[in-house]
Amino acid sequence: MIGLPALQGVYLRGSGLTENADSRLQVISRKELRELVRSQLLMLLEQGNLQGAKALLVPVQPADIAEAIEELPEAKQAIAFRLLSKDEAIEVYENLNSNVQQSLIEEFKRQEVLDIVDKMSPDDRARLFDELPAKVVSRLLGQLSLIERQATALLLGYEAGTAGRIMTPEYVSLKENLNVFQALERIRSLARFTETVYYLYVVDIARHLTGIISLRDLVTAQPEQTIGEIMTRDVVSVSTDTDQEEVARTIQRYDFLAMPVVDREERLVGIVTVDDVIDIFEEETTEDIYRMGGVQSGGDDYFQTNLLTVARRRVVWLLVLLLTNTGTTAVIHSQEDMLKKVVALSSFIPLLIGTGGNVGAQSSTVVIRSLNVDQPQANHPLWVIQREAFAGAILGVMLGVIVVIWAYFLQGSLAVAIAVGISLIAISILASVAGSALPFVFRAIGFDPALMSAPFITTAVDVLGVFIYFAVARFILTRI
Amino acid sequence: MIGLPALQGVYLRGSGLTENADSRLQVISRKELRELVRSQLLMLLEQGNLQGAKALLVPVQPADIAEAIEELPEAKQAIAFRLLSKDEAIEVYENLNSNVQQSLIEEFKRQEVLDIVDKMSPDDRARLFDELPAKVVSRLLGQLSLIERQATALLLGYEAGTAGRIMTPEYVSLKENLNVFQALERIRSLARFTETVYYLYVVDIARHLTGIISLRDLVTAQPEQTIGEIMTRDVVSVSTDTDQEEVARTIQRYDFLAMPVVDREERLVGIVTVDDVIDIFEEETTEDIYRMGGVQSGGDDYFQTNLLTVARRRVVWLLVLLLTNTGTTAVIHSQEDMLKKVVALSSFIPLLIGTGGNVGAQSSTVVIRSLNVDQPQANHPLWVIQREAFAGAILGVMLGVIVVIWAYFLQGSLAVAIAVGISLIAISILASVAGSALPFVFRAIGFDPALMSAPFITTAVDVLGVFIYFAVARFILTRI
Repeated sequence: MIGLPALQGVYLRGSGLTENADSRLQVISRKELRELVRSQLLMLLEQGNLQGAKALLVPVQPADIAEAIEELPEAKQAIAFRLLSKDEAIEVYENLNSNVQQSLIEEFKRQEVLDIVDKMSPDDRARLFDELPAKVVSRLLGQLSLIERQATALLLGYEAGTAGRIMTPEYVSLKENLNVFQALERIRSLARFTETVYYLYVVDIARHLTGIISLRDLVTAQPEQTIGEIMTRDVVSVSTDTDQEEVARTIQRYDFLAMPVVDREERLVGIVTVDDVIDIFEEETTEDIYRMGGVQSGGDDYFQTNLLTVARRRVVWLLVLLLTNTGTTAVIHSQEDMLKKVVALSSFIPLLIGTGGNVGAQSSTVVIRSLNVDQPQANHPLWVIQREAFAGAILGVMLGVIVVIWAYFLQGSLAVAIAVGISLIAISILASVAGSALPFVFRAIGFDPALMSAPFITTAVDVLGVFIYFAVARFILTRI
Repeated sequence: MIGLPALQGVYLRGSGLTENADSRLQVISRKELRELVRSQLLMLLEQGNLQGAKALLVPVQPADIAEAIEELPEAKQAIAFRLLSKDEAIEVYENLNSNVQQSLIEEFKRQEVLDIVDKMSPDDRARLFDELPAKVVSRLLGQLSLIERQATALLLGYEAGTAGRIMTPEYVSLKENLNVFQALERIRSLARFTETVYYLYVVDIARHLTGIISLRDLVTAQPEQTIGEIMTRDVVSVSTDTDQEEVARTIQRYDFLAMPVVDREERLVGIVTVDDVIDIFEEETTEDIYRMGGVQSGGDDYFQTNLLTVARRRVVWLLVLLLTNTGTTAVIHSQEDMLKKVVALSSFIPLLIGTGGNVGAQSSTVVIRSLNVDQPQANHPLWVIQREAFAGAILGVMLGVIVVIWAYFLQGSLAVAIAVGISLIAISILASVAGSALPFVFRAIGFDPALMSAPFITTAVDVLGVFIYFAVARFILTRI
């Protein structure tokens, strides 16, 4: 281990850059620095050296402080948090995960809670309130300042997962008749209270959104030009009930830094900023990936959820799959007469349905992804399915040849080997057609296509696969 | 179908907002408007009405024009593109997918190509050049202006997938001794040539990055303050060879709009902006999801890739899985003596290994995702594996009870039913341990954990599953 004092020196030089403290020290990555902050913070708190801990945290970014606090034992979290300056405390608090946020709220005295909650940005506060028990929320809401209470209550009124819930009402609005100089004055006076000043929204007297202008355009314009002259009138906006994933996709599509949100009467009520978009994408992707793995996602952190809840969520899909798989058992059961005669047939069942499942999983994976990111192919199901069927045929032939050789080598029966090979080709084609078609079918009937993913295709192919296998085997064995 | 003239009216009112043309018309979503632009553009081009097509595109966002052009037949793409004004043409071109970009390049006359390529932002140009044949690239590079050539060559010198390749050298740098007024003047003069003016980078005489200041801070500061007084000295930066996914994660972590990129000597060489981050996440997520579905991703669009290439990429994994599955066949083959006696055993093989595969797929999905997004659990493998083992046990017991009943009902043999139930519990535990442990193992030996996903776990569980099943069955059948 490298000596602590030297490293503390590196860190406390104040720059977050990975840099040489002096030429003998190795360059330390930002991640290593974060680990160091974490271990040193714990050490200093255990020594009771609060001044040292305070000094340690001064040059650290709020997101990193939050991470360090999350890793502390619960009893130390509130102590560490109290070392922060008021402004920093709010930023750090917004970065904490919701479990730690809740346990801190319980630790704090009334006034401390109010100081923090009152100054959080309304969208972060709405997210916190989402997680707290309803009783605590109504108590906290009651104690906020009137304006803050209105902002939060507004956000809480919209459904979870919509633009209304993730927007912030803290934006700068301008009127068309202001000139550039006046607009800049207004921005200066509002900059402290608003989430972004880089996009400014132009509204009429009834708060209808009529235009948009960037701070960049404003800074480069002549002071005496009016906003109406230089603003863009072609505004892309979303409405309060737009799904958050669609909001994110729209911002991504147009490379915006923020997106205005309007109500049914086209009045501006808030904005969604690009930093939230990244988190939304991550959340939605996790949900998609969980679904593709057959895990029901509850929107919360899998690893922080109670084990019984986890089991309950997972068992639902497993039961559906198990019921489907009883079909496989029934099919094999019905063929026991043939199996008794040619017991060798049974050894290839897992190989055939396993390979079929894998081919199907590949097809469903690429199709589900293209549906989820709205690729142009998503509009041409027949083309996609046909293409996958061809791919399945090519793959089936390649693998079939190998399997025939392996089957003949293992069992010495040409009839069984040929039956296995032909079945594999048929199963590959079937699996890739099912794997590509079923996500489209699911979308058409209004389900999430991600539900029709690897585990489901694999299981569906199991049933059909053994059926095909026995049909082919019976046909060949009765003729050779 | 709704009448075209009325809809054209709605669109050409110039606002991109979803709005009522008049009270009798239904609200039209932005997506429907895009569809309309597409169909009308094609119609107008087919009629040879170029003035109409030009007027149609004037109020449309560049990203939407690009989409409309992509959907046109190839012969019409160049015609539509030539309708655009020069400035707009560049933005639209940057939004086109690389296939269409390439085919347009081939259609254009020399001067047209130069006009576009010369004015594209260097990072978009580097991406285009990545896709073009080397011969075309060197010809185009030779014809760019010296400064542009240097910018692009600089970017092309870095490895694909690193910060160096995705950064833009178009940023505004300031010196510490400038005052706020002078800095704003400098921004005004540079705003046209730079990708963002919202973050300004402070460098010393040797171009070392010493601080950062936002336009927001600048606008709210007093005109006579110096940059050195108000800038932030704690700069988070990445280096040119940092992996693009890490760059994206860092920007996400700190909610930045842009991230400075420095070279080995800590000199500022470029910035990565937040809009690129979203695209990087999408690209990396697609790669992860493809891997999780057992599809090798080539970084290009699956649906635009030649079918034989697709088959070649998919067959690699299928062969690995097939070879693993021959193990299953061998295990069953070795147990044929018992199968001959109790043929009923074979009907439960697919159900057992299928369920085991599904349980394992669930575990590997949640673990791989937590490794990929760098959740804190990613640092505690033993805790995760133990937890998953418990989950596997709970799930195994729940499903086992159902399976025992089903097996007894189907076969009437209590011994077989109990063997199936006990095997299912053992297989569930094994599958969830394997599903959670193998991604960690893969990470430890330097592979992408996503490779150890559903298809692989399923197949690995197949082999071990039949082995356990026969061992349990033999034990029980010889004793009851």
